[in-house]
Amino acid sequence: MALAAPALPFTFVVHVLGIALVVLVLVWNIHFRGGLAWESTNKSLIFNIHPVLMLIGLIIIGGEAITSYKALPLKKEVKKLIHLVLHAIAIALGIIGIYCAFKFHNESGIANLYSLHSWLGIGVIVLYCIQWLYGFVTFFFPGGSQSVRQGSLPWHVLFGIIVYVLAVGTATLGFLEKLTFLENSGLTKYGSEAMLVNCTAVITVLFGAFVVLSVLSQGSAGDDDYTAI
Amino acid sequence: MALAAPALPFTFVVHVLGIALVVLVLVWNIHFRGGLAWESTNKSLIFNIHPVLMLIGLIIIGGEAITSYKALPLKKEVKKLIHLVLHAIAIALGIIGIYCAFKFHNESGIANLYSLHSWLGIGVIVLYCIQWLYGFVTFFFPGGSQSVRQGSLPWHVLFGIIVYVLAVGTATLGFLEKLTFLENSGLTKYGSEAMLVNCTAVITVLFGAFVVLSVLSQGSAGDDDYTAI
Ligand code: HEM
Ligand code: HEM
Repeated sequence: MALAAPALPFTFVVHVLGIALVVLVLVWNIHFRGGLAWESTNKSLIFNIHPVLMLIGLIIIGGEAITSYKALPLKKEVKKLIHLVLHAIAIALGIIGIYCAFKFHNESGIANLYSLHSWLGIGVIVLYCIQWLYGFVTFFFPGGSQSVRQGSLPWHVLFGIIVYVLAVGTATLGFLEKLTFLENSGLTKYGSEAMLVNCTAVITVLFGAFVVLSVLSQGSAGDDDYTAI
Repeated sequence: MALAAPALPFTFVVHVLGIALVVLVLVWNIHFRGGLAWESTNKSLIFNIHPVLMLIGLIIIGGEAITSYKALPLKKEVKKLIHLVLHAIAIALGIIGIYCAFKFHNESGIANLYSLHSWLGIGVIVLYCIQWLYGFVTFFFPGGSQSVRQGSLPWHVLFGIIVYVLAVGTATLGFLEKLTFLENSGLTKYGSEAMLVNCTAVITVLFGAFVVLSVLSQGSAGDDDYTAI
């Protein structure tokens, strides 16, 4: 299902939307939600680290990792290294981000893992780690035989897209859930904060769509990732 | 990115999960939520039609429409007719379902279109209609030239998958939102209804994943949809 369209323009859109998302999620949590803190008597500040790290980590850095093969004018081996390092950073930030959600819940006496968002969130981080480990072992070190790589690649791409789309979906669930909590505590439904959060979520969906479009489109000539494994 | 795996087993999983979902969403809305009604002083019964029709329409019938090319042992022309008719039914049920959400809001004095779920929901139904109309005109009546069809098909498949995944994501947002409302009004977080709703949502995600896997896998021999347009 490769598209007869060049990937590069799509990857530009990914960068631009990614920068917009970093700004939006920081403005939301620092300006509107009072800031970020590892330790605080105001437990909400501990929670605020969660959306910031999940979005910058799993979604944005993860998306840049996925599109790096198509976006960068570098040698295959260098891009492979960038791909796996960016994904490792995404996972690390993701784990710290999830830790902060648990920390907030525990210090505030709120139950853990009751919501659809948290269930899918655990699924996402587990699948993301499995995908990373399988990719590392098969394509990097020790690395499978040429035929194992060739047979694995389409599944790596497909499973990677599925896990990534699941991550994007989980993030949108998070935005909706948090905003619903805030609206139940009195935040106005059409106020500037509500619009900011909903727009951030919509841009997250668009970001995810352009990451997928980049993957399915053509890299620059002589650099077809699906044959040169 | 076509997978070297046969589609038929995936389509079986789609049928089985689809039947499970119909049962789950009906048990939830009829047994736990008090039933369905077009007119009632208990406005919640009007709302209850919404998740039932959205799930059975856009998600399940829509998913069966998408996989029909891979699931049915029929001639291409017959499958095309089934594909477009099932999608038309999905859209019709979707529009009635959305109408019920608005009807509930209006008769209960609740604002319209304030949530991320409702924003994406409007996007989904509009894109779904555009996708249907474009497909109808290009592949059915009057039908484009052979080269127009051939050039359009990968985009039809890709755009169709994107819209469908967006529909699945929107449905999970709906489940999370409704359950959050109920939990804020006192429903216990780990009670049987909460588990039922979260499990229905997780199965919805799995259903969507198997629909996508069916599309990307191989139809039966001599029946390659991507060449015989
Ligand atoms: C892919 C990205 C994300 C993943 C994998 C993820 C994962 C998780 C997990 C596992 C929990 C459960 C913590 C516990 O039970 O103690 C959680 C909680 C939470 N997350 Fe996220 N999260 C993500 C993004 C976001 C975003 C962007 C927001 C936006 C504000 C958010 C909002 C919340 C909220 C409100 C909670 C607490 C309520 C609940 O447990 O559902 N999350 N998240
Ligand atoms: C793809 C399927 C779906 C679409 C396209 C969709 C679309 C919509 C739309 C457009 C609205 C706005 C109505 C208004 O503003 O007056 C709405 C409301 C609502 N829907 Fe859905 N829906 C879907 C599935 C579901 C499901 C499965 C549930 C599960 C219970 C659900 C729960 C809700 C709730 C609670 C509302 C009212 C709150 C709000 O406006 O967000 N939806 N839906």
